[in-house]
Amino acid sequence: MSIVSHSSTIDELRQALGDKVSVNQTMREHHSKDESFHLATLPDAVVYATCTEDVATTLKICNKNRTPVVAFGAGTSLEGNSTPIYGGVSLDVSQMDKVLRISQEDLDCTLQPGVRRKQLNEILSTHGLFFPVDPGADATLGGMAATGASGTTTVKYGAMKELVMSLTVVTPNGEVITTSRRARKTSAGYDLTHLFVGSEGTLGVITELTLRVFGIPEVIAAATMQFPSLRSAVDGVIEVIQYGIGVARIELLDADAVSAVNKYSDTNLPEQTLLLMEFHGSAESTAIDIAATREVLERHGGSGFVQTTDEAERRKLWQARHDTSLACRSLVKNAKNFATDVCVPISRLSDCIEETQADLVASKLFGPIIGHVGDGNFHVVLSVDPEDHPMVERMEQFHTRLVERALAMEGTCTGEHGIGMGKIDYLVDELGNEAVGVMATIKKALDPNGIMNPGKIIAGTFF
Amino acid sequence: MSIVSHSSTIDELRQALGDKVSVNQTMREHHSKDESFHLATLPDAVVYATCTEDVATTLKICNKNRTPVVAFGAGTSLEGNSTPIYGGVSLDVSQMDKVLRISQEDLDCTLQPGVRRKQLNEILSTHGLFFPVDPGADATLGGMAATGASGTTTVKYGAMKELVMSLTVVTPNGEVITTSRRARKTSAGYDLTHLFVGSEGTLGVITELTLRVFGIPEVIAAATMQFPSLRSAVDGVIEVIQYGIGVARIELLDADAVSAVNKYSDTNLPEQTLLLMEFHGSAESTAIDIAATREVLERHGGSGFVQTTDEAERRKLWQARHDTSLACRSLVKNAKNFATDVCVPISRLSDCIEETQADLVASKLFGPIIGHVGDGNFHVVLSVDPEDHPMVERMEQFHTRLVERALAMEGTCTGEHGIGMGKIDYLVDELGNEAVGVMATIKKALDPNGIMNPGKIIAGTFF
Repeated sequence: MSIVSHSSTIDELRQALGDKVSVNQTMREHHSKDESFHLATLPDAVVYATCTEDVATTLKICNKNRTPVVAFGAGTSLEGNSTPIYGGVSLDVSQMDKVLRISQEDLDCTLQPGVRRKQLNEILSTHGLFFPVDPGADATLGGMAATGASGTTTVKYGAMKELVMSLTVVTPNGEVITTSRRARKTSAGYDLTHLFVGSEGTLGVITELTLRVFGIPEVIAAATMQFPSLRSAVDGVIEVIQYGIGVARIELLDADAVSAVNKYSDTNLPEQTLLLMEFHGSAESTAIDIAATREVLERHGGSGFVQTTDEAERRKLWQARHDTSLACRSLVKNAKNFATDVCVPISRLSDCIEETQADLVASKLFGPIIGHVGDGNFHVVLSVDPEDHPMVERMEQFHTRLVERALAMEGTCTGEHGIGMGKIDYLVDELGNEAVGVMATIKKALDPNGIMNPGKIIAGTFF
Repeated sequence: MSIVSHSSTIDELRQALGDKVSVNQTMREHHSKDESFHLATLPDAVVYATCTEDVATTLKICNKNRTPVVAFGAGTSLEGNSTPIYGGVSLDVSQMDKVLRISQEDLDCTLQPGVRRKQLNEILSTHGLFFPVDPGADATLGGMAATGASGTTTVKYGAMKELVMSLTVVTPNGEVITTSRRARKTSAGYDLTHLFVGSEGTLGVITELTLRVFGIPEVIAAATMQFPSLRSAVDGVIEVIQYGIGVARIELLDADAVSAVNKYSDTNLPEQTLLLMEFHGSAESTAIDIAATREVLERHGGSGFVQTTDEAERRKLWQARHDTSLACRSLVKNAKNFATDVCVPISRLSDCIEETQADLVASKLFGPIIGHVGDGNFHVVLSVDPEDHPMVERMEQFHTRLVERALAMEGTCTGEHGIGMGKIDYLVDELGNEAVGVMATIKKALDPNGIMNPGKIIAGTFF
């Protein structure tokens, strides 16, 4: 596909949707990139959809004219997932931001794709409920579903994959489908819900989501412990999980990450390998879980156990964890972050992180490591000056080795950021030509004109 | 597709696979049906595969000759899922019954599709592990994945959908793909794992599975309570789940089901609405969960709380639950069972079961109800004399009304048995022409010759 102008598409969109269509330069620039390091590209126009019909209208016109369409939510993706690399239309669904239905009895809710995570939890909290997936950023739920996001609570509650019950999706030809009923489980036909979760807008546009939610626990307790080595912490976590002890979050920060957080967030955490944990339940059950976790971790060399149920203290701790990215950036002059993630079987996690730490030293790169250790998933938050070309080159080589290392350990090139444009060269290394060929067959069958977020997930060589 | 003979296919299969190919009448009859009421149809031949290569060879030959292929495991499906309704080849994978790898650290295992549930748990138990999905029947894991099975423990551990991490699948053209790496989570590309889970052998044949497993809990406690009404029991369960209390199983038996079980299994359960529960954890945590559950359920009218941690007593109780089907059949002269299931949002479960009970009375049918109440899923175990044609007709009309009732309550026509041939007319009612059209597009793209289990899931009108 070549970069072409799409003026007749824009004319038709304007006739159908009026001032929901913008070609304003500022609007186009806002939709040209996400929070990543990846190249920005301007869309030819931005459509601000306010309902499913707007999305269907846009897709019908774009499909007829073979104009690319890339859905856009909060722009917080990290692999260029929402960047319109072939121009065309950026279809902004951020104004579709209504929570449509909440059921306390069924523990589910239905919402539009532009609802943001914090907004959803504010509304749910008035019903005594919460939605656990927490990728850090205040992303839209539509974007989180499209990316297959997860985060710090996956170890207890699961990722978007587990918690999306049903989607309303507009297909490239403008048809509106609902992928599942509202029953908690079903074995009726192909699992279209999971096909669209993680498809990054390459098969259709999500215009409604039904999500599982949970009752806010009576008690939420946070705790920290430090460890003499990375391996001792990971071995402890493996045992905690083997025993089925109920941890709601269990995050690993390496010494560099702790140091960056302390400087940025005015915390005073011990600057060595740290586990940051959270426990959800009744007063009795969390006390049992905490005692059991502490006992296991102390046996593995953990020390300095500190615990709090004070909400302000707890929030400060998790905000500090979520601010790691900003914290790291502040330590390197003129730095931008290059955040990447891989995920390996937990038995290989210590090996993978230790080899990665050694590689960082050898590569003269600053990259604190933070991990959703219960899932075997970790992030390297590389702080790189984009004008320092030798540094950028070292970073790119480091990144390739990181992915190769994870794949050699039976892991994946991306635990939770998606493929986007940033990991597109690795998908075949991970799953093989035949499996990616099956994905390409599905893509071609459902989007024969190739209008949906072209250039993402599946490399052009498959088309 | 018409019913044709496939003699040249059989000749080619024999040349390639020798005596793994059988046209013996007894073997063909064994592969002509499952455990359901649905019509039996003979395959032209049975291939006993012993490895992935055998499966690939079979599919390549059948695809070239456009011969239907239906994978076969234990034959325990309930919607005619494995019946070769257009003849062709029944591809028996029951001899592919090896557990290939178990990891205590990663809590996962890899196995061949012919491994049966009880066999897997025997092997896992020597490592202190277990696999929780329990559909009752001693099904193969390949069949359970293909059907999207679940069962009594889904409320705590999830269904096959949640616990299959990766599949090796032979596609219709004989290519071998692996759908995912062994990382606990990934957002790399389309979720092919979930596409094949529940696809009932219509897109390919599963030849290897990687599954999540769990540590055997320190304590497993069973408990029962009876209720003055169905609604009081369901309301109690809704509240237990809202509080996030850790129940591992929570099964509802209506008075007819309890009565049938008592007669058949020599139990002495009170013959009214009964909840049969199980709790997994440490001695301390199960004690807390049991006390909390009991308090909530007593507030909803539950009484007669009985609990046991004795393994023999516990096994007897669950065996009695699993024998409900046999128990019901024994109460009607010359009866065969017609077991069906639907699943609705739990807020509608009382309405759905009460209306169904009234319909049974009006229809002069005997059909005890047993439910995975935590999931909103219930079974009606109709005992019907197949020679009593008016009874069969009443049964069929009742069944249609049951599905319509579940769909009207935002439920699904099948919670865990799959569509097979038995529910094929309802899939469009449930999801609409457009969504089933997307499924048909995927089917046509991946299996252009329509050889994989034709006549299942998607009705012929879509092709």
